[in-house]
Amino acid sequence: MNAAVIVAGGSGERSGLAGGKQLASIAGEPVLAHTLRAVAGCGLIDHIVVVAHPDRVAEYRQTAVAPVAPQQPVEIVGGGATRQLSVAAGLAAVPSDAELIAVHDGARPLITPDVITDAIEALGADPTVDGVVVGHPAYDTIKVVDADGRVMRTADRATLWIAQTPQVFRASALRRAYASAAAGGLEGTDDAALVEAAGGTVLMVPGPRDNIKVTVPEDLTLVERALAERGRVRG
Amino acid sequence: MNAAVIVAGGSGERSGLAGGKQLASIAGEPVLAHTLRAVAGCGLIDHIVVVAHPDRVAEYRQTAVAPVAPQQPVEIVGGGATRQLSVAAGLAAVPSDAELIAVHDGARPLITPDVITDAIEALGADPTVDGVVVGHPAYDTIKVVDADGRVMRTADRATLWIAQTPQVFRASALRRAYASAAAGGLEGTDDAALVEAAGGTVLMVPGPRDNIKVTVPEDLTLVERALAERGRVRG
Repeated sequence: MNAAVIVAGGSGERSGLAGGKQLASIAGEPVLAHTLRAVAGCGLIDHIVVVAHPDRVAEYRQTAVAPVAPQQPVEIVGGGATRQLSVAAGLAAVPSDAELIAVHDGARPLITPDVITDAIEALGADPTVDGVVVGHPAYDTIKVVDADGRVMRTADRATLWIAQTPQVFRASALRRAYASAAAGGLEGTDDAALVEAAGGTVLMVPGPRDNIKVTVPEDLTLVERALAERGRVRG
Repeated sequence: MNAAVIVAGGSGERSGLAGGKQLASIAGEPVLAHTLRAVAGCGLIDHIVVVAHPDRVAEYRQTAVAPVAPQQPVEIVGGGATRQLSVAAGLAAVPSDAELIAVHDGARPLITPDVITDAIEALGADPTVDGVVVGHPAYDTIKVVDADGRVMRTADRATLWIAQTPQVFRASALRRAYASAAAGGLEGTDDAALVEAAGGTVLMVPGPRDNIKVTVPEDLTLVERALAERGRVRG
């Protein structure tokens, strides 16, 4: 069986969205509900763990999980002080017989079941790979800069990809990477970085251009319009 | 005196915007008109060169330049087959007594006079610097990937900046860099890359989060709303 961990434990204090970005409303439903519906719509996911703000588990259940009513079992656990600790809390709730674990940001509601399916299948198709990351090649010029803001060099854009989520891993590789990071005090900027640090092989796969992470209030309108264009909500 | 080159010569064929993105309408005016108004509103710019699509110079003049009626002289020249050749065409039209030259993408209409002023002043304040680039630190995790899509490593995000425009240079450094690139067949992904390649020192300065480059049709609505919020157009 395959599991998904939806990371929605951030306080969203930086977002300017009252009450946190996960429960901010898009077309009458919380951001997280839209995300959950997409994950639950992926036929290859059998069990879902939602990592919620630790003080608001009941509120998340009532406003974001119950209305979606996924077919799969959904557990809601409280998150930690950092994203990495939140994912670790989610992993602890994933059934031990899970073979693949997909990690997805609760604040990326424009993800579709198809993209998650494609990522899972890409991982399944290549036994030499421990994880698959959805993202896109870098569009903008990227500079390597020193602490004073001076450009040291222009990065070779052809080799750079922006990493988003979902990120799908073999459960054993992800659990080992998290254990190793916790033991070594390693902080990664994403889950794949921990798997890479533990010696795992990670493959990038191209995802949709609009898979944005809701960060500022303006993003809500952007997401609402995109969903309306897809016919998932009334425009 | 200081000059600005507004690069608006792209055909916009990839944008899905009929007629090219520079003349696509936002609140009843072409994208380029909004950009030009911001550049012309910067009190430190004395002369403006607009690099237009080579077949559409008259149309650009009539629809995007005349309605804005900048105080400064504005020249319109035809662009080349690549962005780099278009900037080179613009540089050739910049008066020879220009001390500083700001290069800005015509498709970034959310720039403000203040940001351009700040960039010019940052360059003026540091005689050891040849150019200043407006951008922002990388928000997302960035992976260095091989030709097969396998992640070689996660880049150290703390050192990475996304480079946008305006980019402001000492005229001598920019002209020398372009001459050197032309002689050596060097292609850069931005103007600063050519100055760096010629041994120049470039400084990144933080710009506004919303300084997007209009690329797909959805971006037009995004820009329109941002302008309305600023009170520059009717909402």
